[in-house]
Amino acid sequence: MNLRNKLKLYVITDRRLKPEVESVREALEGGATAIQMRIKNAPTREMYEIGKTLRQLTREYDALFFVDDRVDVALAVDADGVQLGPEDMPIEVAKEIALNLIIGASVYSLEEALEAEKKGADYLGAGSVFPTKTKEDARVIGLEGLRKIVESVKIPVVAIGGINKDNAREVLKTGVDGIAVISAVMGAEDVRKATEELRKIVEEVLG
Amino acid sequence: MNLRNKLKLYVITDRRLKPEVESVREALEGGATAIQMRIKNAPTREMYEIGKTLRQLTREYDALFFVDDRVDVALAVDADGVQLGPEDMPIEVAKEIALNLIIGASVYSLEEALEAEKKGADYLGAGSVFPTKTKEDARVIGLEGLRKIVESVKIPVVAIGGINKDNAREVLKTGVDGIAVISAVMGAEDVRKATEELRKIVEEVLG
Repeated sequence: MNLRNKLKLYVITDRRLKPEVESVREALEGGATAIQMRIKNAPTREMYEIGKTLRQLTREYDALFFVDDRVDVALAVDADGVQLGPEDMPIEVAKEIALNLIIGASVYSLEEALEAEKKGADYLGAGSVFPTKTKEDARVIGLEGLRKIVESVKIPVVAIGGINKDNAREVLKTGVDGIAVISAVMGAEDVRKATEELRKIVEEVLG
Repeated sequence: MNLRNKLKLYVITDRRLKPEVESVREALEGGATAIQMRIKNAPTREMYEIGKTLRQLTREYDALFFVDDRVDVALAVDADGVQLGPEDMPIEVAKEIALNLIIGASVYSLEEALEAEKKGADYLGAGSVFPTKTKEDARVIGLEGLRKIVESVKIPVVAIGGINKDNAREVLKTGVDGIAVISAVMGAEDVRKATEELRKIVEEVLG
């Protein structure tokens, strides 16, 4: 499995915009190469049940499946990996308790990017590239900040934060391995079509 | 390690009543034989940090340490076990991803007790024995319901729900292996003294 190649179009769930299962199915039909289940403050049983379904769907479409924050849910549903931010479990601890999970680190500065790589992250979710309503308190690093991170680490970098079909090209030209989107897909009337449009742009720029 | 013997006086944290670290230290000084960290809706990093401290304290006092709901946090802090209710991860799944954790199951009926034992729970937290403000929606099984569970399973049973120094004796006489308390200890002005009084009663009845 080529991790870099599978991070091209990384779609994240958001139940404030769409229920997880149907929207993920549509995103996969539209060409998402990776899915992240991101659910805050729901019972573990609910995350586990939805996670099992998303794991099955992502297998059918040969996409990667990540779980936000929860190492236990990622292990329980046999996800490919887990996405960890500064408020989640430390990377080095997650690696100890989950030997086979791919660890993605959410980083909001060059310093955090270098630190995460050093601690053993397998890829970075770097942002926020642009301001975004999904995470209003996130620091905005801009295209320049993103480029610096891409040039400074060896592990794959996925750009995140305010990315849509109008700005995706310039983001992809910074040298990132992929783009992560929430509202550009989950906020669209037609999830499948929105994903298809982004996938087309990704293929144009990354080849 | 004799699990039954270590479940005699099982104290559960509640940050609505007291911050975890200091109250657990006092409960351990007062004779708690097991501690459960129960934190809802806090960032994983915070649970991990507090959990590490509680793990260290419980080691110093030779007490067992359990984490409510979160298998990942339990693994990360090297807890002895995890406590799983109907809204948490299924017991059989937790056993698969965490081979060495003691699994406690929260059960609210004889049927659930038998089911949890069958699925591989190592002990039961059975209740609610009495009505309790800590969990107002919990079913009340009473002393009779508790006794039926004790007589029907082979694994250790800890009684929970509205237990205090005034009713602890009659609860212990049902044949349970221990009592679990939240507000009787965490709601007391003097946590250490409240724990000491309960420990004394436990020793009187269980010998």
